[in-house]
Amino acid sequence: MFKVNMTMLPEPIRWNGVSVEILDQRKLPDVLEYINCTSVEHLANAIETLAVRGAPAIGIAAAWGVVLAGKQGEPIEPAIERLRKTRPTAVNLFWALERMASALDYELEARKIQDEDIENNRKIGGHGEKFLPNESVVITHCNAGALATGGWGTSLGIIRSAREAGKNVKVFACETRPLFQGSRLTAWELERDGFDVTLICDGMAAYLMKNQKIDAVITGADRIAANGDTANKIGTYSLAVNALAHGIPFFIAAPKSTFDLSIPDGNSIPIEERSGDEIRFLPGGQTVPARIKVWNPAFDVTPFELINAIITEDGVYEPKINKF
Amino acid sequence: MFKVNMTMLPEPIRWNGVSVEILDQRKLPDVLEYINCTSVEHLANAIETLAVRGAPAIGIAAAWGVVLAGKQGEPIEPAIERLRKTRPTAVNLFWALERMASALDYELEARKIQDEDIENNRKIGGHGEKFLPNESVVITHCNAGALATGGWGTSLGIIRSAREAGKNVKVFACETRPLFQGSRLTAWELERDGFDVTLICDGMAAYLMKNQKIDAVITGADRIAANGDTANKIGTYSLAVNALAHGIPFFIAAPKSTFDLSIPDGNSIPIEERSGDEIRFLPGGQTVPARIKVWNPAFDVTPFELINAIITEDGVYEPKINKF
Repeated sequence: MFKVNMTMLPEPIRWNGVSVEILDQRKLPDVLEYINCTSVEHLANAIETLAVRGAPAIGIAAAWGVVLAGKQGEPIEPAIERLRKTRPTAVNLFWALERMASALDYELEARKIQDEDIENNRKIGGHGEKFLPNESVVITHCNAGALATGGWGTSLGIIRSAREAGKNVKVFACETRPLFQGSRLTAWELERDGFDVTLICDGMAAYLMKNQKIDAVITGADRIAANGDTANKIGTYSLAVNALAHGIPFFIAAPKSTFDLSIPDGNSIPIEERSGDEIRFLPGGQTVPARIKVWNPAFDVTPFELINAIITEDGVYEPKINKF
Repeated sequence: MFKVNMTMLPEPIRWNGVSVEILDQRKLPDVLEYINCTSVEHLANAIETLAVRGAPAIGIAAAWGVVLAGKQGEPIEPAIERLRKTRPTAVNLFWALERMASALDYELEARKIQDEDIENNRKIGGHGEKFLPNESVVITHCNAGALATGGWGTSLGIIRSAREAGKNVKVFACETRPLFQGSRLTAWELERDGFDVTLICDGMAAYLMKNQKIDAVITGADRIAANGDTANKIGTYSLAVNALAHGIPFFIAAPKSTFDLSIPDGNSIPIEERSGDEIRFLPGGQTVPARIKVWNPAFDVTPFELINAIITEDGVYEPKINKF
């Protein structure tokens, strides 16, 4: 297994032998505070309310939820059922719970899921960094970093691996409305880790692409269909259309647990629609009255035609050329 | 002149015979409050701090600023110089100040500029509404409504004129980060005026275009170069690229005072870059620490190739076919 230096990287999920400690990402970057989840319901709530988010991290958190149920002598099936209902789009959740359902030693299996995720992140980083020139400028969306995974990151893992390989990577982070994961999490995580990061609003990315040499757009994924269609945070599709229009390669970085080969294409991916209040209210203020309708899908689907490569721990798929 | 029913429409600028009353758009939609500008400096400040915004409205406000200087027996040239320095991108400002510089009766000229703008808005509405089917769904960005003009609106004027022609128009308003003119102004203005309006985040528009029949994207403009390249609120270019990719016509609605035939193309349009704090701070909260870099251009340039038509009071230019 790779040795990961975690000194600069935040740990989103920690098992302390008795309960699951969740870094409360809703409070970042102002407060670095862990929630101590002592019950499955408590943990399920932490996933639903986005205290922990990011497809791989959701899977890991849910796995530890099953450990928690086991430790407390609770039946496993209802715990798994409860955890399955927390978020619909990220398939890593269901993948992790299926692994847990058939595990002999829950704690060992959850630890394996978490450690393998970091290992896979490192492999993704190794495969992906080869696409970046020595002096690179990258646009990313939402947060697919240490905070969204076991610890290294998928899209931000590629950026970290490029730096390890001696490359100089500058990052533009899209703020990612409505919940500002790009500003609150990615800009914070990268700046803390010594990267040159610049924040932009989501609507500025196209203009940035037109005005400055951008080497790649790299995002994570929540679910990848059999043809390569990829669901990721809302706004990703707009970036992909714009990347194509500007001749910029667009990469998805994701572990294979993100693949859902049971569905043919993106039309079958369930897209979570969240409360319009996430758009209406800003931390500290409301932007529009409650009577004004709001459309608030939490993810979108990027057709495979717009994706140059999907980089996994096992190698690089080019959906326009390869079959999975 | 057209008779405009202003009962439902907000009046962004009022001359009361002594001073210029500016509807403070920074406080909308929570508070409907006028600032009483009693000096040129006060009015210039209202323009700079976006109490009044929108290219045609900026021109009108500046014209009344010259009237104010005249009433107070101040020299006109320094007043015009001060007002010219308020905002760099919207060319209507310089156009209006040039008209005022050579006017014989300042008050008459300012009144003409304001009344003609409403008249031109109505003509733009009449030309533009012909592009909309009887049942239409339109995406708009920022605010090019009554609040941004003398009173009827350019892009929202087309929507209003379509309704007058018996058509049913549904509107998706992009919230328009960083300053939320779409949510705070457009959603408010349209809902107040009885329209079916839905708010989306800027990054959601592409996904909306892919998932629902959208008949048109219509925005205003801050400056249009001789070849048709158009500067408008940042985020417009992203919408235009996405509209093209989805086969949706993309329209600019603007009075001819927005044209700057002295410059060949969009590369010569000065783009205002505003403080990064507009992105960092939310009303009531800060999203990222001050040390994190922010890129905050206030407008972007949409190449003429992406624009199906530019609709002015004199008719419709198709930049890919017509020369001006």
